[in-house]
Formats: sequence, structure tokens, C-alpha cells
Amino acid sequence: MAPSLEGYSSFKHFLVSSPSEYVAHVETNRPEKLNAFFEDMWLELGRLFKKLSHDPNVRVVIFSAVGDRAFTAGLDVQAAQQSGMLSPNSALDGARSATRLRRHIEEFQDSVSAIEHCEKSVIVVLHGISIGLAIDLSCCADIRICTKDVKLCVKEVDIGLAADVGTLSRLPKIVGSSSWVKEVSMSARMFGADEALAVGFVSRVLENKAKAIEAATELATLIASKSPVAVQGTKNILNHSRDNSVAESLRYTSVWNAAMVQSNDVSAAMLSGLKKTKPRFEKL
Amino acid sequence: MAPSLEGYSSFKHFLVSSPSEYVAHVETNRPEKLNAFFEDMWLELGRLFKKLSHDPNVRVVIFSAVGDRAFTAGLDVQAAQQSGMLSPNSALDGARSATRLRRHIEEFQDSVSAIEHCEKSVIVVLHGISIGLAIDLSCCADIRICTKDVKLCVKEVDIGLAADVGTLSRLPKIVGSSSWVKEVSMSARMFGADEALAVGFVSRVLENKAKAIEAATELATLIASKSPVAVQGTKNILNHSRDNSVAESLRYTSVWNAAMVQSNDVSAAMLSGLKKTKPRFEKL
Amino acid sequence: MAPSLEGYSSFKHFLVSSPSEYVAHVETNRPEKLNAFFEDMWLELGRLFKKLSHDPNVRVVIFSAVGDRAFTAGLDVQAAQQSGMLSPNSALDGARSATRLRRHIEEFQDSVSAIEHCEKSVIVVLHGISIGLAIDLSCCADIRICTKDVKLCVKEVDIGLAADVGTLSRLPKIVGSSSWVKEVSMSARMFGADEALAVGFVSRVLENKAKAIEAATELATLIASKSPVAVQGTKNILNHSRDNSVAESLRYTSVWNAAMVQSNDVSAAMLSGLKKTKPRFEKL
Amino acid sequence: MAPSLEGYSSFKHFLVSSPSEYVAHVETNRPEKLNAFFEDMWLELGRLFKKLSHDPNVRVVIFSAVGDRAFTAGLDVQAAQQSGMLSPNSALDGARSATRLRRHIEEFQDSVSAIEHCEKSVIVVLHGISIGLAIDLSCCADIRICTKDVKLCVKEVDIGLAADVGTLSRLPKIVGSSSWVKEVSMSARMFGADEALAVGFVSRVLENKAKAIEAATELATLIASKSPVAVQGTKNILNHSRDNSVAESLRYTSVWNAAMVQSNDVSAAMLSGLKKTKPRFEKL
Amino acid sequence: MAPSLEGYSSFKHFLVSSPSEYVAHVETNRPEKLNAFFEDMWLELGRLFKKLSHDPNVRVVIFSAVGDRAFTAGLDVQAAQQSGMLSPNSALDGARSATRLRRHIEEFQDSVSAIEHCEKSVIVVLHGISIGLAIDLSCCADIRICTKDVKLCVKEVDIGLAADVGTLSRLPKIVGSSSWVKEVSMSARMFGADEALAVGFVSRVLENKAKAIEAATELATLIASKSPVAVQGTKNILNHSRDNSVAESLRYTSVWNAAMVQSNDVSAAMLSGLKKTKPRFEKL
Amino acid sequence: MAPSLEGYSSFKHFLVSSPSEYVAHVETNRPEKLNAFFEDMWLELGRLFKKLSHDPNVRVVIFSAVGDRAFTAGLDVQAAQQSGMLSPNSALDGARSATRLRRHIEEFQDSVSAIEHCEKSVIVVLHGISIGLAIDLSCCADIRICTKDVKLCVKEVDIGLAADVGTLSRLPKIVGSSSWVKEVSMSARMFGADEALAVGFVSRVLENKAKAIEAATELATLIASKSPVAVQGTKNILNHSRDNSVAESLRYTSVWNAAMVQSNDVSAAMLSGLKKTKPRFEKL
Repeated sequence: MAPSLEGYSSFKHFLVSSPSEYVAHVETNRPEKLNAFFEDMWLELGRLFKKLSHDPNVRVVIFSAVGDRAFTAGLDVQAAQQSGMLSPNSALDGARSATRLRRHIEEFQDSVSAIEHCEKSVIVVLHGISIGLAIDLSCCADIRICTKDVKLCVKEVDIGLAADVGTLSRLPKIVGSSSWVKEVSMSARMFGADEALAVGFVSRVLENKAKAIEAATELATLIASKSPVAVQGTKNILNHSRDNSVAESLRYTSVWNAAMVQSNDVSAAMLSGLKKTKPRFEKL
Repeated sequence: MAPSLEGYSSFKHFLVSSPSEYVAHVETNRPEKLNAFFEDMWLELGRLFKKLSHDPNVRVVIFSAVGDRAFTAGLDVQAAQQSGMLSPNSALDGARSATRLRRHIEEFQDSVSAIEHCEKSVIVVLHGISIGLAIDLSCCADIRICTKDVKLCVKEVDIGLAADVGTLSRLPKIVGSSSWVKEVSMSARMFGADEALAVGFVSRVLENKAKAIEAATELATLIASKSPVAVQGTKNILNHSRDNSVAESLRYTSVWNAAMVQSNDVSAAMLSGLKKTKPRFEKL
Repeated sequence: MAPSLEGYSSFKHFLVSSPSEYVAHVETNRPEKLNAFFEDMWLELGRLFKKLSHDPNVRVVIFSAVGDRAFTAGLDVQAAQQSGMLSPNSALDGARSATRLRRHIEEFQDSVSAIEHCEKSVIVVLHGISIGLAIDLSCCADIRICTKDVKLCVKEVDIGLAADVGTLSRLPKIVGSSSWVKEVSMSARMFGADEALAVGFVSRVLENKAKAIEAATELATLIASKSPVAVQGTKNILNHSRDNSVAESLRYTSVWNAAMVQSNDVSAAMLSGLKKTKPRFEKL
Repeated sequence: MAPSLEGYSSFKHFLVSSPSEYVAHVETNRPEKLNAFFEDMWLELGRLFKKLSHDPNVRVVIFSAVGDRAFTAGLDVQAAQQSGMLSPNSALDGARSATRLRRHIEEFQDSVSAIEHCEKSVIVVLHGISIGLAIDLSCCADIRICTKDVKLCVKEVDIGLAADVGTLSRLPKIVGSSSWVKEVSMSARMFGADEALAVGFVSRVLENKAKAIEAATELATLIASKSPVAVQGTKNILNHSRDNSVAESLRYTSVWNAAMVQSNDVSAAMLSGLKKTKPRFEKL
Repeated sequence: MAPSLEGYSSFKHFLVSSPSEYVAHVETNRPEKLNAFFEDMWLELGRLFKKLSHDPNVRVVIFSAVGDRAFTAGLDVQAAQQSGMLSPNSALDGARSATRLRRHIEEFQDSVSAIEHCEKSVIVVLHGISIGLAIDLSCCADIRICTKDVKLCVKEVDIGLAADVGTLSRLPKIVGSSSWVKEVSMSARMFGADEALAVGFVSRVLENKAKAIEAATELATLIASKSPVAVQGTKNILNHSRDNSVAESLRYTSVWNAAMVQSNDVSAAMLSGLKKTKPRFEKL
Repeated sequence: MAPSLEGYSSFKHFLVSSPSEYVAHVETNRPEKLNAFFEDMWLELGRLFKKLSHDPNVRVVIFSAVGDRAFTAGLDVQAAQQSGMLSPNSALDGARSATRLRRHIEEFQDSVSAIEHCEKSVIVVLHGISIGLAIDLSCCADIRICTKDVKLCVKEVDIGLAADVGTLSRLPKIVGSSSWVKEVSMSARMFGADEALAVGFVSRVLENKAKAIEAATELATLIASKSPVAVQGTKNILNHSRDNSVAESLRYTSVWNAAMVQSNDVSAAMLSGLKKTKPRFEKL
């Protein structure tokens, strides 16, 4: 088993280990409840990814969950009901209830978005039951891979809601078929690994969870061996590009690289390219 | 045959039936002309989808055409020529001709866009000849399915025009290959069901028209059984997301759901989830 | 061999021939260096595509390279190092170095973007080694086809850089899987024709370079036989659509076509459609 | 008194006269209620401006109201209450009430926006009480002039609402002080002609209503004497510019003028410039 | 002197009192250093405005500073130098220095932006020396008022920097003269109250600090007496409007108000309007 | 008289002198024709400002014209007519004429936009007749000052055109009154210095041309004495801000400054601030 990553022992709901140099592995740790999330968990998840974002010992993050049964069954509906989050507070009028809900949703969104805003590459491994919040979370990752037996579902309409912590904002921008996005989002029907691969939701399907973690670790190790200046810049610019015109993106890129080409990594990379050696890059 | 939907008997060019509860089936009814459109037809189509949009008895719309030969052969070019729409009015100078044409195109666009703006889910079934306007119309639907024998074509360059009632604005945003979009749009070559599925234009291919209508009806019935608050919200947010950045989309979503979570549908959906019963939702 | 295209003999690094009427074929001509680019080459490439853009004798451009080994091995790193472009000038402080670099990147971007801004359709044929700059260049083309043996790679992180002349701005907008884009961009791993086709990067894969050039020429000839008013309008509107909302794109389209429908091409196209003859269109 | 404009006699709530060639004068006609609006009125207003937009006999519209006391006292709150528009329908849950309200607001917005979308120049004359809806309506006009005694107010917070039919969307884009916009919008305090002129809300202040109408008519007549191709293009491009970047606006402008310069107006205007005669332009 | 506001005693660098019901008064408390800011201060300021944002006892915030000499002299340059923030770390290459700086600037921006994101109305009172950071901070407020003797300056170019915590992003959007914005930003020249009023930077000028605080309190008390649903909605929609097209803003507004009209404030406001009484609104 | 600036003697239509260190003064030199522009002139103007943009000896540009009578009378209409630019080519159909015109307008726009894209500060001095193109050109400058007797006019509607080389795209974004912009653009009425100052079009009015040049030189000299890293960054970020949301602008600013704070100018500026000496900055 991979050693724990230093500095993360205070996180209660997530295990954080280091399977290889510069690679962190985050695992949701509530297998007895199919890794379903309650409020305290997602707030912690947000803080965790904020910390990983600036940790110089981390270049790539793998995100999966403990146990074979589920990446996550989504929102812990029972907990949500007890918190009163989804039920109207009869003491409030419609506008005040709406304000309370909006603030709550924004806080939830911020926690989930921390994965997208993490400056390091994030690879999510979807396995077993991966529904509802599983899609919101994984849409924030950079790279999605899954197991053959994964059970995926944009589940929210089944509890009477439009998905509001990211799926509807991000899913249409990360896959290639709007018809498919609308079909699965409006019907809440399950879909599997083959379909996920065909529409581009995941870029790889592996035999089982062990194999998927192995493949993720290999890919993470490869990315972690590259210049962190180059990889973090690539992530930053790609996320900017998604939300801007090509002209605007080119402008931003030229400004970004005007500073970022001034690193020792360029000569280190070129030199090791010529010498066929493995370059070493400073932390970032 | 499905019963007519109440309140739609005044529409001349389209049949509107109700194959299942909360599902409307719109069929273009000009099979003798391969369901080709003339001005009066698209104006009526616009009015029809505006009415469906707010009809509380409708949650999902299936859109197909009468007869096996064609979904539509597109614009009725002969009629268009007779109307003088495509030929210059020699009494007008270039600027005044352009103004007349722009106003005409905008009106045409508005009619077609009524399908996209319809608040209810729209499933289009493409069958037989489906060229020119067929692509403009189906790009506005939420979900596209087709028959194995469908003959698709972005036909406009063949009549000396860039497509101007929606295909060029929407097609690149609903499929995953820009190279393919440009190839079919610039060459006006035919493409079939396999290609349409591979690039994500349609999300399902069925054996023949009967099977496709059956599949559409099943899917429509499934979606119609969900909370209309959830499904209509999902459509609204996904359409917003297409045209806005992720950050803007998250903001809009939180405001949308601040009101929409305050429905009885959430508890109805959850309760029936626990009780394994079929929930009933109020009309919307 | 195709005859040279008139007016292009002064270009030193590129061959420009005319394999069929209204079709230009541009070939990078530095096979002994795997068609790697140095500064003088991309500046010339920019000027070349600017000239093609307004040349009335050209309607479609095919872009490939001389020799079987490589479309291009990308930036000529040795030449780049000698020019001092990638190494810091120790006489300058960080801000002044950044300014020098930014101006340099912008000039490089402008040359590459000339392919996108070329008003005529551009078909790129990727063959053999096609890495680094190969992706930046081909993302600007309208249509991408490749050979079975093509070796593709978003190579930049391997030299310590985020790609800055277009790949990161355009690649996510022309293929359908964000997960795949991030995987290949962050890892700099090679990918082949099958993968390129599956994600929609290319729209066709051919057996070998000869077959690919043949297919490109056939497609180019088909497009060149259509109304140039219609084809150029289609390109212009599709590029606009990529960077704007659907509503904005529809507005732009109606203004564009208000002028463009006033061509003789519409009646010529319709007439030849009825008469089953091949229409002739005026130059543009 | 100015003669009635032909074709507008069916409008019930508005007088439409023609004080000079190509100039229409629209007057809200409910002086006994301080020209307060109820639903039927704004629906008619929307239809009226849609008709003016394409009427070739109209080039400029002046918009004022009957009587000296008020341009409009805004929404007729009593009528609104009776219609149930502002009071919750207890039979509906929060989400369904919200949907009913949203549809209602959108319809109201569309009516008001018809003034902005009118292709002809609109000059509004604000006089007397001009509060609430008066600001929403006048923000849609192109040119605002007012009388010395005008009483202006962004009134909505005083009835417990954020202004939702246009003031908050347009006011910050048509005046030069955000601090002032927020002060008057959040406090609902009255402001007068001097303040309106200082912040650029109006471009002229006149002694009294008669003088203001006279000035508006003079200005309208001047604008109506110019090429309608030029004036309508100017309005269209300025409205586009407000919502787009400079680069996007330049692109749109070049496409717009590519058609619009092809008018007889250019030579007519130039010729009369040389000959010092008054040019005549065809209708548009 | 106004009583302290409950719950804010832990803030070290700012006094928070309550001069009237629902009004909070925040005062920067470092008069001996002309209220210059160091890192710990702006981080605390960010947390302070986040707390005010959701505090139901607060509807309006007045922001000024202790002492008559300065609102703030800006960044405490000496402290900044000691922190090493503005000097290069020679152990880092250019790219790593840039990353360290970018993260630092983002954190600083987030603290400042908390004023803009505060859901309650913010009135800033500029007095005495108000340079550099004073402009960044006050651009985030909703309403700006100042004293006659205020000394304003976009000071950053004088320390070799482009202003990076908000002035350049917000100032051009809140005043009406781009020529003036560029003149004061590029030259770092001082400007006074008259000029600030003429260009719309402030909406009121008062004789001295005491009078300005009095006027601010009066205005704050007026705004605090209105429906908080209406006022907070007005702020939210106006901020959205600044960054979006009119069409997008109208859409957002209709969704916002669909929930927000469902408050008791509407009937309370209307009733008290009829009865000429002072309405009471629930907290928010 | 100021000495000529080295390296600019080949420009035929413009005088380029250097009244003070790092300041260039560009003067249109066709006083006998009221400095009216023909095609060769604006193409040269574009090249001139491109050269100034990267000239390390230039930090600020003053732009005026030779002679007291006119900054420019705009387009030389006679020359334009002779070039056939404004008259239809009867050999071309409407679409082909439109294409020819669009390409022509784009080239014209690019020349004018070179002033905006010039990385150095540009101060325009408007004097005497300043109509038509005068407004397009001056809208691209950063700072506008004028003489008391200036005669300004958005003249284009008087020749049957909507202004298409920049006025309609930029004017509404640089002044504070939309009502005024529309009034002067739709009516082509003259306006003077007072009005220009009141709406924020110019930031200063001087007694006569000599005084205005003097004031411009003084301001230019002041700006030229500041860190060029800081001033050029300020211009770049302000231009970006105009076309982007506040959030986007803040992101861009943090990336920009991450490189630009790494200059020697910061310590030089701070040191000279403490020592009360005049700092010297390296060229840029």
C-alpha cells in the first residue's frame, strides 16, 4: 500500500497517499455508505484540493474511493433531509428560502469547483456505482478513466432536481454529443463504460478497479516526470480556452508563456532530450 | 393510432397526437412533396412550438413527419422562387434588397428557433430523406435519433447559399468533430446513420421508422414520468451552459435552483424512491 | 505531377501546385530536416496563406509536406536555440525578457493563424511524423485527414513549455473529448490514426500518403465545384459560430447572408440542379 | 395638431400621429391615470413598435405621453394586484409559482424590448412624473430628452422588487457613473433634470413639455432627412457594439456595410453634398 | 459614538460599529500609518466583508477610516518590501517567481473583491489621502462619496507597477470617460473631488469628513429601510449586468425575480405605500 | 521646432519629430487638403504606428496634424470616388461586390486599429475641423485633448454610410452618455469642445493649438518619465478590461503582472521615491 502523503493526516473523510513521486492519491473513505457525501465531506474535499493545489510535493492527483462497490452513490439524501437543506423552512417566505438555498448551493459549488481550480493535474478513476455527485465531481477532473463495470448516471432529476453543482455546466463542454448529454440528463438513465468511452466522457476503460488504479498511477507518474511549469501551464490555458474565444485564448497564452518560458525547465528538458537522460525539474 | 392532442386541431400543416400521457407527437404533413417546407409552414411551426412550450399537458414532444420517404426534403425551392424570396427585386438597390432579405431571414430563424426555446424536451426522429432544413430543425431539438436508412445532408451550398436558419450556428456545438462539420457543410455530401452516430449527431439508430418512433415514444414516456420541474430546469440550464462560461453557468444555475428546489416534486420523488412507487407530479 | 500555381514561385520554403481547377496544393519543402520549421519559414507561411486567401484562382487549399517521413517534426529546436529565442537574455530583467518573448510569440501566432483566417477552405493531410507544431498548424485547417501510419503528438511539454501557438486554444474546440485532450496535452504521449479518428480530430484515415493526397484532392475538387460564395460564407460563419453564442451567431449569419444571397450563384445553382448540368460560378 | 399616421388607428392605448415627413409620434393615452400601464397596454406597446420597425413610412419615432402631468407613473399597481400577477397563487408550490412568474416577466420584457429592437430611431421625451416603468421604457429609446420639471425615479425597490423589465440591465450601460446608478436604484430617491443631464441619462433638457416636443420634432426631422440606410445601420451597429468586444464589433460592422454601402444613397448624398441640394432617399 | 456591532470584536485592524439599524460602519484603524495596508490587514478585510455579506443584521455597510488625514495611503511599501513580496527570490527561476507572484496577487485580489461580492450595499467615504489601494478598494464599493479635500491618485505606476488588485479592471466600467481613466492611470497624477464628481467616480462631494459620514449614514439608513430582498437583488443584478449583454442580463433577471417576487415584502411595501406607514421587512 | 525622430524619414504623409525624450510627435501632413485621408495615407499610418509600437526609443506618441485649420476633414471623398471604392462595380453581382467591399473595409479598419494596438501611450490633439475619420482615429488614442475651437462631427451618415472604421465600435465605450452618442451619430450634427468635455470624449480643452500641443507634450513627458513596464502594462490591461468581464480581467492582470513585477523598475521607482531623485528606467 502506498505511504501516506505528509501533511494530510488531519483530513477525516479522505485518505491521501503517495503511490509515486509527486503523485497524490485521494480516496473518499466512507465505503460502508457507498461513499455517499454529506455536507461536512464536501467542505473538507474543497479544503483538501485547495491544499493540493499549492503543495510543491504534488504534481498529479488521482481521485478514487475506498472499496470496490462505489466511487460514490452521490448525495447522502437522508443526511440532506435531516439537515433540512432540501426541505422548505416554513418560517421563511419564498424569497428568503430562495436566498438561503442559493447561498447553500454556491458554497457546495465552490467546494466541488476546487477540483477544477486545483493547479495540478487531476485524474479521476470511476468505479462501481458512480452516480449523481459522481458526475459533478468527475467533470471537474482533467482526465477521466473508468472500470468496465462502472454504473454511471446523471441522477438528479430522479430526486426532482436539476443538477446544480456542476454537471449541467461542465458535461456539455467535455463530451462530443449534445444529444447524448440531454438524453442522459433528462432521463436519469444509467450508462456504462462503453457509452462513456464512445462519447468521450472517459478516455480509457480498464478491466477492474485494481487495473484502473494501476493505469492511473502509470499515467500520473508519466505526467509527474514532465516539467511542472509546462504541465500546470497546459492545464491553466486549456481551462481558460474552454470559456473564451480563440483570439482571447491566444492573447492569454502569449502573456502566460512570456513569463513561463523563463524557466530552467526548457534547457533541462532540451538537454535531456539530446542526452537521452531523465530531466529533473525544480518543485512548483 | 395515437389520439389527437386537444387544442391543436387548427394547425394545418402538422398533425399533433398524444401517444402517451404528457407526450405530444408532431408530424409534418406534406408527404406528397417529401414534407418540403414553404413559408406558411415554418411560420405555423413556430407558433406550434410556442404553444407546446407552455402547455401544461405536454412534457415531451416527439417531432417526425408523415410517410416513410422523408423527414423533409428541406426548403420547397420552387415555392421559394415563386415567392421571390431568393431572387433579387430589381426595383431595389443592394442595400434595400439586403434589408428585405435580412428581415426575411430573421423571421425564418425565429420560427425555427421556437423548437429550441420550447421549454419542454424535444426528441426528433430523422427518417428517409432528411436534408437542408432537416438539419436546421433537428439541431434545435434536444435529442436526435434516426433510422438506419436516413439520408442526411447539409444541402445549402448546393443551392449557392451558406445555411442561414441555424445549422451553421448550432451543428458545431452539438457534435464532437469540427473537421467533420466543415467537411459535410462545405461539400454538401450525403451522410448516413453510422456517421451521424459516430460523431454524436444522433444518440441512437433504429432499424426503421416504426421502431424509431417506438423508441422515441418510450424515451419520451420515461422523461415525461420525471418531475417536470427537474426536466425543464435541466433543459434550460443546459441551453444556457452552451452559450456561457462555466463560472457564469454555475451562477445562473444557483439562481435557477434557488426557486426550483422549492417544489413538492423533491419530496414526492424522494418518497417514491424510498417506497418504490411511481411518483405523481403536478403539471407545469 | 501537378503544375505550379501561377504567382507563387517566390516562396522559398513551400511548393505551391495546382492539381485541379481552383485547387492549390501547398507542400512544406524541407524533407531533409523532417520539415521542421524555423522562424523564416513560419513568417513565409503566414504570407503565403494571406495571399491564397484573396487569390480568385483558388477556392480550396491542400496542405501537406514533401517526402514520406514527416508532415513536420515541429519546431527546429536547434535553430530556435541558435536564434536565442528560447534562452534568456541576461542583459534584460524579467519584465523586459517577458515583453520580448510576448512580442515574439504573438508574431508566431499571427503566422499560424493565417491558415485559419484564409477565406478559402483548407484541407490538411497529416502523414508520418506530425508532432508539436504539426498539431498547431493542423488545428487551423478546416478539414483534417491522415494516413494510417501517422505519428501525432502534442509535444510541447517535452521541451518544458505549454504549447503557445494555437494547439491549446483550438484543439479543445475541434474534438469531442476534453479528457482525451488533457491526457495527450499533459503527457506528450504519441497517438495514432485510430485514436485521432475516434475523437474526431481527423475525419478520414487513408492507407498511405499517396492515397491521402488523392482523397484530399478529390474532396477539394468537389468543394471547388460549388459556389465559392456559399463555401466561403460557410467557413466564415462556422468560425464565427465557434466563438459566439447561438443567438449572436444567428444575428451575424442573417447580416452575412443579406448580402451574399444577392449573387448569381443561387440561380445558377438552382438551374443546374433542375437541368442536371454542372454550374459555373464566377471567381471570388 | 399633427395628422394621424395611417395604419395605426386600431391601437387603443396610444395615439400615433405624424408631425413631419417620416416622423411618427407615439403618445401613451391614459392621462387620467397618470399614464400608468397595465398588461393590455404593454402588450399593445410591443406590437406597436414592432409595426413601426418595418414601416417604410417611418424613419424616426418620438415617444411621449398625453397630458402635462406624467410621462408615466409606472406600473398600475392596483391593476397588477387585481390580475394576481404580484400575489402568490396558493395552489402552486414555490417552483410552479416561480415558473408562472418567469414566463410573465419574460413576456413583459419582450414588450418593452420592442422599443430597443425597433429598427428606426426612437427619441423619448420625459416629462412630469416619470417613474418606475418610465425608466425601463426610456432606457430602450436611442435618445432621451426631458423637461426641466421632470420627476424621475427608479421606483421598484419601493414596492419590494428589483426592477425586472430592463432598467437594471440597460441603465448602467447608458450613463457614465456606476456610483450614481447604484445610489438611485438602491434608494429609489427622486432625481431631476439637472442630475439626469450631468450623468448623461438625457442629452438635452428643455423648458417645458411643449418646447421638448418641439425640440424632439426638430431633431427627428433632421435625422429623418438623412439616408435611412445610414441611420438604421448606425443604430444597429451601436446596439451590437454595446454587447460585444471592439474586435467583434469591427467584424460585424464590416459585414454589415459590405451590403449597405451598395445603396443609391451614397451617391445621392455625395452629389447633394457637392450641389448643396437636399437629397431624397428611397424608403426603407 | 456609534455602538459596536455585535460579533465583530475579533477583527484587529478594523472597527465595526452600528450607527443606525441594519447599518454597519467599517473603519480601517491604523491612522498612525495613514491607514496603509499590509498583508494581514487585507486578508482580514476579506474575511470581514464575507461575514458582513451574510449577516442578517446588516443591510448596508459604510466603509471609511479612522482619523482625518487619510482613507488610506495605499500599500505599506516598507512592509511589502520586508515580506519579500515585491523583490525577486534569487533561488527561483523566472517561471517559478512568476508562479509565486501570481498566487500572491490572486489572493490579494480575492480579499479586495470580497467588498464587491458582499451581498449588502457598500458605501465608501473617501477622505484625505486616498491613493493606490484606496482606488482599488473603493471601485468595489457600490456608492462612492468623498470630501472636498480628498487627494485621489491611481498611484501604482509610481512604484513601477500596473495596478493589479482591481483598479484597472473596474475603474473603466464605473466612470464615463476613458480618456480620463487613461490619463490618471498612466500619469499617476493626483485628482480631487471636483474631477471625481465630473467623471462620475463619486456621486456626491461633502464639505468635510464629518459631513460625509453623516451623509453616508443618512443614505445608508434610507436604503436599509427598504425591502432587503429588493435592494440585494438590485445589487446582484446590476453587478451581473456590468459583465453581460443586455439579453443575457434580462434572462438572468427574470430567473432571479421569479423567486424573489415571492416575498412578503411586496405586499408589505404596497400596503405601507397605501397607508403611508413605514413598512417592516424580515431580515435577510 | 522639435528634431525629427530617427528612423522615420521614409514616411511620406506624416512628420515624426521628438519634442522630448521618449516622446514622438506624429503630424498628418496634407494641410492643403485639410489633412483629408486617401488610401495610401491610412495604409502608411498603420505601418507607422506598428513601428512606433515596438520602438524602444518611444514611450509616448502625440498625434496631431500640420496647420491650424484641421486635424482632418476625414476621408478624401473625391479620391475615394476616383478609386471606385464607394461605387458599385457593375461587372460584379451583389455578393461579389460585398466581398470586395468587406475586404477593403477590413484593411482600412486594420490600419486605424494600429493606433489602438500600439503598445505605447497615444495622446491625440484635436484641433480645427475634426470630422468623420477624425473621430475614428481619435477613438483609438488613449487620451484625447482638444482646442476650444475644435469642430467635431460623426459625419458618416451625411455620405449615406454607417461609420465603419471604428467610431461606432469604440465611441460608446469611451464616453458616458449613450443618448449623446446616438444623437450625434444619427444626426451628424457638429459638436464643440464644451460638449466633448462634458460627455468625457476629451479630458482637457486648451485655448488654441499651440497651447494644446504644449499641454500634450507636458503630459507626454510626464508619462514618459515613468516606468515603461508599468505604463505599457497599464495600457494593455485597460484595453483588455474594456472587452472582458471584471473576473476575466482580474485573471488576465494577475498573469500579466506575474511576469512584469519582475523588473528592475520596481526597486528603481521605490528607491527614487525614498531618495526624492528621478529614476531612470531601461528602454522597452
